[in-house]
This record gives sequence, structure tokens and C-alpha cells, in this order.
Amino acid sequence: MADEKTVRVGLLGFGTVGGAFAEVLAAHKDARVRITHVFNRGVDRKRTHARAAFLSRDVVWTERVEDVLEAEDVDVVVELMGGLDPAAGWIRAALGAGKHVVTANKQLIAYRGAELFALAAEKGVQLRYGAAVAGGVPVIPGITQGLNGDVITRISGIVNGTCNFILSSMEGGAQYSDVLAKAQTAGYAEADPSTDVDGFDARAKLCVLARLALYAEIDPEQVPTQTIATISAVDFAYAKELGCTVRQVSRAALTDGVVSANVGPMLVPKTSPLAWSRGTQNMVVTSGRFGGDVVFSGHGAGGHPTAVAVMSDVRAIAEGSAQVRLPAKKMKVVGDVVAPHYLRFVVADRPGIVAAIAGALAKVGANIDSILQHRGFAGDRLPFVVTTEPSMSSWLNEALWEMAGFDFMLEPPLCLQILVVDDKDTD
Amino acid sequence: MADEKTVRVGLLGFGTVGGAFAEVLAAHKDARVRITHVFNRGVDRKRTHARAAFLSRDVVWTERVEDVLEAEDVDVVVELMGGLDPAAGWIRAALGAGKHVVTANKQLIAYRGAELFALAAEKGVQLRYGAAVAGGVPVIPGITQGLNGDVITRISGIVNGTCNFILSSMEGGAQYSDVLAKAQTAGYAEADPSTDVDGFDARAKLCVLARLALYAEIDPEQVPTQTIATISAVDFAYAKELGCTVRQVSRAALTDGVVSANVGPMLVPKTSPLAWSRGTQNMVVTSGRFGGDVVFSGHGAGGHPTAVAVMSDVRAIAEGSAQVRLPAKKMKVVGDVVAPHYLRFVVADRPGIVAAIAGALAKVGANIDSILQHRGFAGDRLPFVVTTEPSMSSWLNEALWEMAGFDFMLEPPLCLQILVVDDKDTD
Repeated sequence: MADEKTVRVGLLGFGTVGGAFAEVLAAHKDARVRITHVFNRGVDRKRTHARAAFLSRDVVWTERVEDVLEAEDVDVVVELMGGLDPAAGWIRAALGAGKHVVTANKQLIAYRGAELFALAAEKGVQLRYGAAVAGGVPVIPGITQGLNGDVITRISGIVNGTCNFILSSMEGGAQYSDVLAKAQTAGYAEADPSTDVDGFDARAKLCVLARLALYAEIDPEQVPTQTIATISAVDFAYAKELGCTVRQVSRAALTDGVVSANVGPMLVPKTSPLAWSRGTQNMVVTSGRFGGDVVFSGHGAGGHPTAVAVMSDVRAIAEGSAQVRLPAKKMKVVGDVVAPHYLRFVVADRPGIVAAIAGALAKVGANIDSILQHRGFAGDRLPFVVTTEPSMSSWLNEALWEMAGFDFMLEPPLCLQILVVDDKDTD
Repeated sequence: MADEKTVRVGLLGFGTVGGAFAEVLAAHKDARVRITHVFNRGVDRKRTHARAAFLSRDVVWTERVEDVLEAEDVDVVVELMGGLDPAAGWIRAALGAGKHVVTANKQLIAYRGAELFALAAEKGVQLRYGAAVAGGVPVIPGITQGLNGDVITRISGIVNGTCNFILSSMEGGAQYSDVLAKAQTAGYAEADPSTDVDGFDARAKLCVLARLALYAEIDPEQVPTQTIATISAVDFAYAKELGCTVRQVSRAALTDGVVSANVGPMLVPKTSPLAWSRGTQNMVVTSGRFGGDVVFSGHGAGGHPTAVAVMSDVRAIAEGSAQVRLPAKKMKVVGDVVAPHYLRFVVADRPGIVAAIAGALAKVGANIDSILQHRGFAGDRLPFVVTTEPSMSSWLNEALWEMAGFDFMLEPPLCLQILVVDDKDTD
């Protein structure tokens, strides 16, 4: 490694990931990368944190972000604060000042990526975000560097560790509310779990991936999300009978120039790699026209795995390794999807229920594939399941709307997409 | 994408991969990459092949490799001939002439990598080989670009599709010889299957990965290999009883500056991702100190997946994206491994067999973990199994050597390493 020059890093945020980044950097003993500045609120507290010992003594601690953004001796700004604002303004300022930026901020890339990439290109600097999706799993570099030679038509993934922890625990018999509480205690889930369980975190990550894999710049707000909060133990029992489990899946596909995308709990066949993921594991499957399905999986979140991705980006910049630029164009999202669906009803049993449901489905042209009803439930609160042949989700929603009004229906019906596994052997 | 310049490709080899590369390139309609030369024997036949239609009319067909290596209008030489010689000389000549090289040749990188990387660095050009391991699965770019921030301590993988096809078919009940014949008919296996089934192909790939993941330059000849040809149906039955299956695994680990590595059939717990691989799928698992286990899987071989990896490398060069250079140093390989082992014996039943075997194991300090003997086998040809607690493989081999001489032993005992799954949740 000849003619090395030290890359000086200004760190915005010294929390879990920032501290882990300092530790990972120290472990590498890489003389090419040095943290010169740390911005955080309450630096007096932060500088006494155990992980501050991984920083050099002459690091500049500051509570004024300008001290980092305007520093002459900062080449790379590493943004680990998260959120859209004020992070976006800071990154804009850093790029504007000719500094490279490495961020783990998926919301920022999903909502403001296009503008920030353009600014980085204009300034001749890099904006890297390998940690924005699946943390320590190199999905972003893998797609960018290793799959740009394919024509990817579909991505599907488990990209929210909290939801996967909850659903894979429920698969093992736990109740939603108990396992959510446990995840909150363990620090996997926020006090307000909505960002995770309602799919907004996963949706931002899906949009980041759609740009790289499908070359589609899509508006996160156009991607329909469905909460996992309505999934109950009985759904896992029925899913099992159908050879499936339930996972929060984020999927997008490009067909004839149209992007279809959605996020929510789905039935995943046990033969799909997505069914293998356990605990907080992340997994992304890309489907390419030439290379078939490629699976990436591992620990998506947490300080250390995320720090690995950040560190890899910083080292790439230190090496002078430019990114492969991929084209991307603005595209509209179709939230509608044609797929087999799982419908779960909770009813007060009486004659004529199946006929009523079948009638509502027939009205929208949806064919029933199977009807499942386990023994052992009380007739006054009977859960049972109907699966459909591939049907348009918007038509099913119309039928569900009608069915929700039936007098025997004790809860709004639950409708989940069933994933279809169709990876073919390639030649 | 401003200031683009066309990258002109000289192709060495227009077989399955070369033809697929032309097809993939044509599908991309990427004006930045153009094939200008094709070298192959028998060009008159090649130029009438269906996939020749994907080339432009003015491509230069030649049977003289110098026409490509010395061409002024070739920027990147893509080598798809395979084998050590004459490929090494061609690549040396291309690099020497200041051309970038993209190759799918794992033997070349495993045996001559160090010399060729040095030459490329000296000439300021790139030598890329993303297709050398796991074809269309971006393991090489994933590790290089996305995991260089971790400290990887272990890699294990299924990197030979032929062996995986054979063993996963045997798991489904097929006989070794039948499924080998089937693989040969399907074109997955060569007429002489030794390179695949005896582990030499996988070993070269393991050495390529060891350089990137463990920064260890190891001599393939020092890595012990074991054939899969001695695996039989009964091993799958016993493995199942142990919660495992059998796969050809290539593994290397770095502990206290020492590389331990070996290739061969191993017992893989069903809880390991390696047990999920089916058919010709490849899978690589890296274990990092900070990021934990990361899994890559997909279609490793075949024209199209391999062409995707080649195309990705060529596009990276066209983009001016330099590689992240990773350090690597020459290291000795220790073939010995401390692990639990599976020993399968075929004996003529008589009293005292277990005592004799237990005695031989005790002599080398190996503790027995379990003894398994299925009903339903004839006593004059009885297969049974002993598993050991973690033991040094060389000591076990000593014991096996003694046991092979026992009069009741009808076949040389089979000894397989049992993989241990220990991925921890990271914080």
C-alpha cells in the first residue's frame, strides 16, 4: 500500500453506533483513517463513556456541528444521528464544503437521496450509505458492485429486525404483546413501536434498495404498508398448515416499466429463504433475469454490525475507490399486487357464513383456493381461514370492505399476501 | 453520468460463459462497454453460434491470442478460458501492456494471484475476479467492499455446485453413482469428476476467499481435501438422526495468526444456513468479530450467473471504480482441526467391536459422544456410527489407522468433521 494519505473523519453522533465505530476503527489499527472530531450533545458525559477510550486524546469534542462541517482537517463526515432534519441540512453542508459523507440514515436516503446524490456528484465527492439497509449485511455493496451486471426484476426482504424478532418469537408460541414488551426491554424496539411494526422503517429501506436494484426512484409515501400488530397465534397455526410462516416482508418488483411495491406481514413458504430468518436477522433476496435469486443475510442492526458497514465505506473512500454509479429514474409505485392471499376471519358461528364470504369474493372475481378451519375453537369466537388463487389486492380489499359489515364478523378480516417462490435454475 | 468513455473489451474464450457475457452485455444496452475482439479456437464455427448475434458486426474474430493482447483498441481483457497455463501468461502479457483484466479463473487466482496482483499494481491497472468464486453470488465484492470494516475470523462455504447437487440429491434418497451419472449427463459434472468430488475446485476457491476475508495468502496444496465419493446413503440416515445433513464444505479460520483450513464432506447441523443449500446452489458464510455471521447464497455456476459477475467487474472498470485493496500475507496452513467428528464403520458383527474401537479412541485421548446403530442391517455387513467430542483430527486419523487393521473392519472407516454452529447475536 504505497502513497497512503490519512483520511480524517468528523463524527456526528457518539451513541451506540458512533461508539462501536470508534472501537472497530481502533481494532483495525488502520493508519489511513483517523477520527479528528466528534459532535454530540452533552460532550462532557460522552467523553467519559468507555468507548471514548478508543479515540485519540487530541480528538476535538464539540456541541457545535459547524465545528465539524467547517473544519479544514475533516475529509469525511460520518453522520450517525438519524432522522430527516437537521441531518439533511448537515449533509448538504458537508457535501457543499467538498467533504465525503458516510451515513447510516435510511430515511434520509429514501426521502432526500436524489437531491443529495446530485450534490455529491456536482462536488466530486462520495455519499456512501452501506449501513442504511441491513446494517452489517453487505446488501448495498453486493448489489452495487456485484450485481450491477444483472437485470434485477424483484427484491424482497426482511429488513426490520424488530419485526422479525417479534414474528419469529410468535412462531415459537409467544404472544404479540408479550414479545413486543420483551423487545422493548431488550432495546430492540422503541417505546413507540410504530415506525417498526407499522412498516415505515422497512419501507424507507425498500426505497433505498429499489434505487440500486431496480434503478427506480420511488416515493416512500406511495408504498402501502400494513401493520404486524394484527397478527395472532392462530395465524401461525394456519400458516403452518399451509406450509408457511409469517414474516414482515418488504417487496418491490419491476414489470414492464411499472414498480409494484408493498410492506407488511406476509405468508412466506417454508421453502423460501425468507422463512429461515430468526430473531433480529435481516435477509434480502434479489431476483435477476440472468443470475437468478441471490440471498444476503445476517445481523442487520446493532452497534457493531452497523459500524462494520460504516467502516467499510470509510475505508473505500480512504482507498480512493469510487462507487459504481447506477442510473435511477423517478417512477410511480403501484401498491396493488396480484397474488394468492390469506384471509382470516373471526366470526360468531352460524349457518351461511361460508356462503356469504364466498359470495363477496365471487363478486370481485376472486377464486377460493382452500378453506381451513381448525377444531377446538369456541363457536362464538371462531377463527377460520380462506386462501384465494392469485387475485388483485385492491379487489380483495373491496370484498373485505363488504364482509366487514356482515353481522357475524367479530373483527375486521385480516388479509395477507402469500409469497410465491419461483427461483429457477439458471443455465 | 457525465464524461463517459467507451471501454473496449477483448474476450478470450467464447464458450458458455463468453456467449452469456455477450448476451448480458447486449441486454444492458450500455454504451460504455463494447466487445471489440474475440479470441477462440475454431472461430469459423464460433461466429455462427446463436450468441454471436449479440456481438457487433465489426468485432474482430481471431485464433491468435496476440491479436487481442496487443490490440491498441482493447482496454480490458476478459479471460474465460480457465486453467493455469497458458492463461497465466496471457494475463501477464495483458497486464504488462497496461490493460485491465477480468477473469473467472479461480485456479489462476489461487495459485498465481500474488504475482499477478503485484504486476497489476505496478502497472496501475485492475485485475478483477468477482466470478472466480460462487459465480453469480457477489461474495467477492461483498467481502471486499462491504465487510472490509470487520475482522473476519472464519469462512465456510459450499462453493462447488456439482458436489452440492450430488449430496443434496443423496439427501433426497439418490445413490452416489446414479446422481453422479445424472450430473454428468446434465453437464454439471465433468467426465472425470475428480476436480469436483475430490475437492480441488473448492480448495482453489477457498484460497481465493482466504486472501480477501482472512488476509491470508495460502498455498492450495497445503489445504487437505477429502473426497465425497465415500459418502453413502447410510451416512445421510445417521446424519439425520444427529440433526445434520452432509455437504461438501470448504472452511478456513484464523486463530492467533494461524490459518486452519480443509475441504471435504462434513456433517452440517440443520440449524446452519449451509444445510439449506439445494441443488447446484452455492453458499458462503463469513464470521466476523464485530458483525457476526453473514450469509451469501445463490446460483454459483452456469453461463449466465457467471457472466453477471464478469459484467459487474467490467462495469466497475468502466466507471473508474478502483478496488479496495486489502493487505494479504503469506501464511502456512494447519490442516489439523479440533472439532467433533463422525466416524462410520462397516463391520462384520461380533462381540468386542465397540470395546476395540473405544480403546483405539481412548489411546489418542478422543472421547466418545454417542454411539448410533440402526436396526435392519445384516450382521455380516453392519454400518454403525460413533461421534466424538471435540478432538484433534490428526489424532483421530492415528486411531483410524489402527482401527483399519482390525479384522472385523470391512471397509476403511469414514471420518467426517461435524460443523459447530455458534453465531451469536451481536449488540
